[in-house]
Amino acid sequence: MSSFRFAVNVTPKPGILDPQGRAVEGSLGHLGIEGVSAVRVGRRVELTVDARDEASARAIVERLASELLSNPLIESYAVETLAAASSTLGAAGEA
Amino acid sequence: MSSFRFAVNVTPKPGILDPQGRAVEGSLGHLGIEGVSAVRVGRRVELTVDARDEASARAIVERLASELLSNPLIESYAVETLAAASSTLGAAGEA
Repeated sequence: MSSFRFAVNVTPKPGILDPQGRAVEGSLGHLGIEGVSAVRVGRRVELTVDARDEASARAIVERLASELLSNPLIESYAVETLAAASSTLGAAGEA
Repeated sequence: MSSFRFAVNVTPKPGILDPQGRAVEGSLGHLGIEGVSAVRVGRRVELTVDARDEASARAIVERLASELLSNPLIESYAVETLAAASSTLGAAGEA
């Protein structure tokens, strides 16, 4: 068993209303920031999965992303592999 | 002027309570998913910046990330460059 660390990026689909994005755009003037547009606010979930290999770990993340972390009607998600978490066995070797 | 697309990933700092992460972990059993741990839930903000060059655009994003998109007491952020947005001048050439 090894540990793998992933990130799931969940963003509102194109055309879906994004009130948080509008709020950010509305605040730019107060900060004196110009030239920023098309702001979309979503979620980022980072997690560790213990599995036999990376493919098995990724399958678990994909299921989690589609069933729990995103609403497929209005959001899309992308899974990103982060720097590998250390093996749970460490220097003791593979089981 | 060119357009650059960035993502800002905002995550709770280590040691900071993350109730959304705990909620996700609490739901794993209902889904029959095992082996997932260390869940951290943050935000992901994607935005377009019009600027002279990428360094100027990135400076604007860094300022936005630290002053508006994150709370430096409890959150850290990372800026990510996404696939370049198209130049606002398009095929007409550089000004």
